[in-house]
Amino acid sequence: MNFSGQHVLSVNQFERDNLEYIFNIAEKMEPYAKRKFRTKVLDGAILGNLFFEPSTRTRVSFGCAFNLLGGEVRETTGMETSALAKGESLYDTARVISSYSDVIAMRHPQAGSVAEFAEGSRVPVINGGDGANEHPTQALLDLYTIQSELRAFEQKIDGMHIAMVGDLKNGRTVHSLSKLLAQYNNVHLSLISPTELAMPDYVIDTLENAGHKVTISDDMEHNLNADIVYQTRIQEERFENQDEANKYRGQFRLNSDIYTRFCKSNTVIMHPLPRDSRADANELDNDLNQNPNLAIFRQADNGILIRMALFAMTLGVADQVDKYQCPVPWYSAK
Amino acid sequence: MNFSGQHVLSVNQFERDNLEYIFNIAEKMEPYAKRKFRTKVLDGAILGNLFFEPSTRTRVSFGCAFNLLGGEVRETTGMETSALAKGESLYDTARVISSYSDVIAMRHPQAGSVAEFAEGSRVPVINGGDGANEHPTQALLDLYTIQSELRAFEQKIDGMHIAMVGDLKNGRTVHSLSKLLAQYNNVHLSLISPTELAMPDYVIDTLENAGHKVTISDDMEHNLNADIVYQTRIQEERFENQDEANKYRGQFRLNSDIYTRFCKSNTVIMHPLPRDSRADANELDNDLNQNPNLAIFRQADNGILIRMALFAMTLGVADQVDKYQCPVPWYSAK
Amino acid sequence: MNFSGQHVLSVNQFERDNLEYIFNIAEKMEPYAKRKFRTKVLDGAILGNLFFEPSTRTRVSFGCAFNLLGGEVRETTGMETSALAKGESLYDTARVISSYSDVIAMRHPQAGSVAEFAEGSRVPVINGGDGANEHPTQALLDLYTIQSELRAFEQKIDGMHIAMVGDLKNGRTVHSLSKLLAQYNNVHLSLISPTELAMPDYVIDTLENAGHKVTISDDMEHNLNADIVYQTRIQEERFENQDEANKYRGQFRLNSDIYTRFCKSNTVIMHPLPRDSRADANELDNDLNQNPNLAIFRQADNGILIRMALFAMTLGVADQVDKYQCPVPWYSAK
Repeated sequence: MNFSGQHVLSVNQFERDNLEYIFNIAEKMEPYAKRKFRTKVLDGAILGNLFFEPSTRTRVSFGCAFNLLGGEVRETTGMETSALAKGESLYDTARVISSYSDVIAMRHPQAGSVAEFAEGSRVPVINGGDGANEHPTQALLDLYTIQSELRAFEQKIDGMHIAMVGDLKNGRTVHSLSKLLAQYNNVHLSLISPTELAMPDYVIDTLENAGHKVTISDDMEHNLNADIVYQTRIQEERFENQDEANKYRGQFRLNSDIYTRFCKSNTVIMHPLPRDSRADANELDNDLNQNPNLAIFRQADNGILIRMALFAMTLGVADQVDKYQCPVPWYSAK
Repeated sequence: MNFSGQHVLSVNQFERDNLEYIFNIAEKMEPYAKRKFRTKVLDGAILGNLFFEPSTRTRVSFGCAFNLLGGEVRETTGMETSALAKGESLYDTARVISSYSDVIAMRHPQAGSVAEFAEGSRVPVINGGDGANEHPTQALLDLYTIQSELRAFEQKIDGMHIAMVGDLKNGRTVHSLSKLLAQYNNVHLSLISPTELAMPDYVIDTLENAGHKVTISDDMEHNLNADIVYQTRIQEERFENQDEANKYRGQFRLNSDIYTRFCKSNTVIMHPLPRDSRADANELDNDLNQNPNLAIFRQADNGILIRMALFAMTLGVADQVDKYQCPVPWYSAK
Repeated sequence: MNFSGQHVLSVNQFERDNLEYIFNIAEKMEPYAKRKFRTKVLDGAILGNLFFEPSTRTRVSFGCAFNLLGGEVRETTGMETSALAKGESLYDTARVISSYSDVIAMRHPQAGSVAEFAEGSRVPVINGGDGANEHPTQALLDLYTIQSELRAFEQKIDGMHIAMVGDLKNGRTVHSLSKLLAQYNNVHLSLISPTELAMPDYVIDTLENAGHKVTISDDMEHNLNADIVYQTRIQEERFENQDEANKYRGQFRLNSDIYTRFCKSNTVIMHPLPRDSRADANELDNDLNQNPNLAIFRQADNGILIRMALFAMTLGVADQVDKYQCPVPWYSAK
């Protein structure tokens, strides 16, 4: 399996053995992310971290992942002032910028833009999100989190029960995660959303064609006894009017009371973050913050591992990371 | 005295022995800041430089201080596009971002925000300014500058005479510096401002409770024969009307003529910078630029030393900096 | 020839022997830019990359060039929020910021600003563009590209024929390149533009005083049989009205058809980039993208070499780059 020099553009690139290989590499990154050691395997390499659409967290996560492998990061944020806004083609931008760096992570608001850029690039390109289209590192970190959380209970992705809750129509993360789950066996998916925000048929088809059991509901209360609850935001502004939205108020917000009544004792809670923590938000209550099954911050941490793995793989050094290992002389509580 | 893993949030954290310890470490950083040597003690460490409110100079100063210790810097500037603007709690932001870095420097427009963030953080947080509340590294670099400038005349902070001039009501820097001065003995403070912009009573109380002599005046001319003049901007827009402001025009602007007539021959001039150098500005004239007692740029330079010291201390490597010393092969005039 | 500690502010600084020296150093940077090796000669040095006017490509190019020599980069982009906008003098900014870094690259919208800044700076300053005034690294990379492209045909800058096409009145790049060409011998320049956008007389005087042959025309078709065609954008918005502009439509846009009919078989095509690739743009057609004589991306690549050379020279390590050479363990297709 050779990822050297390859782009990472879509979850569709990955067969199950690819996923298992990536997760294996990601796991080996943990001692470096936790500061047990550091590695200088990419000392002198340059990441072009091109965020033509702002996303602080994803940008910083890519940048830190590269730093943790020993490399340097050059960045750009926003598009207004860039040459793209003045009519430069993505091909031209790619030809020029790719000569500056060893690998590129790119986010852009327009679907398909990252793949178009990759055609002009002389170095591997990792898609950091291209509008409504793809955000493959998010899907990979979600699936990696499921695998590592379930392992604590000696469970596997094969055969698990996952409930996806919230806006399943517009949520890019649940679509991509579903595509990856199609590579596994005997998954039970409870898809819980207001009818207006139901999972698109083509995603359901993909899941059912993979032999999975799909249950569709607009009622959280009878479908949360899953191994994993993957919560997303109900986007109230998408309803025809506020009266319509109000009908669902509180029905799709996971909190400690609902968890206690309807989840299993060890149901793992996930969320792609950021979550809206304002009082009137409609997704995931702060009263779950001390629940040990709340995996949302471990999930974010795993983004570092996945991105480190992809950088190491596309730059062909996945098996050399430990060779460049050094001690960490400074204080770390991680 | 162990600062490893501690946050630096407020000047109120520091007793006199802490201050002397910090200044001792800061002084040891000077050969590195001056490029006599470089050090790799933090090679591989990552600073999360989070400027939710822009401040080019403070941001770059923190970043350079970290680079000078051998570390890497990941940054964010501005808040509009960040998750915080979409309702994410500071707790959530802190949980996520703190997993990316070894230490965080943070500025935020809202008083108390940095301390709130620190509660969620898994790594030490250094306050780079939280609105009207605190900017402890500025206060530390101010006090360090006073100590090092006075030393040239074989004087100490104990027993010195300092004149604070300008807007003493709204100036965060003079409030914080005053709090630190309360840790010292027998300081004489001349507080010179328009009556409307006088030092708040609680600050004066703190100074008098520490046994200091406080003189209050709205007249620069009879109160500038101090060891230190700490000049700040008169904020004319804070007066009721321009006529009111005009009454003070020129009375609080230090220039070469006033210096010669009213200051001592070696009165040290300080200013937190930036200063407004436009012709109608009301603070510190460019005709003092060649005066050897103008300490404003040495003061800014000391910001690097203080920030290097705090990073080294919070990461527990203050005593290992020299161990990782390397020669500097490139040209430097510093 | 000692550039250590010198500023690079203007193309007027360079005599022919300086240019040849710079190009000689630039050529030695190619194995590092191509990732045959990396070098750590500036490991621990800090570039202050100050872009008070945004220019993604130039900023990233400077930053990557510094990284490729082993150094760190601290950056600032935009001016709105900086102290300069609040009345700080360039002198003050320079005094403060220059203490943070070992060398500064600076872009600013105001002509003369970079030179003014350099007067206050304690470290070498490289001009990354000061408004309509100068952009010396662009001119150097343009000339370096001409030299290296012609070498493939065993030609030299002396005696070559170059056609400059487009807006020659407002194009900073063609003015600066012309100034540098005045250091060479027997160059034939075909200056092709709408009459309204002709090359200024002072530039033509400089070229003729250097003994060059200058041909002026508003017709591409009879003047493109040059060794080099340097294409720039026709800025239609500069005409009195669109009717006036329409008269020139298509007459100054180089495309494959025009190239085949009027250029030599090996005429090298250059462009300062970015080019507008939208259908109605008026400069350089995408149908030339596969033409091996299209040098525009090699030209951009050369920007890295020139900037690496200038950093190495101003920091006095041009002859030590190879001494700090290391192998590159990661995959690179460059």
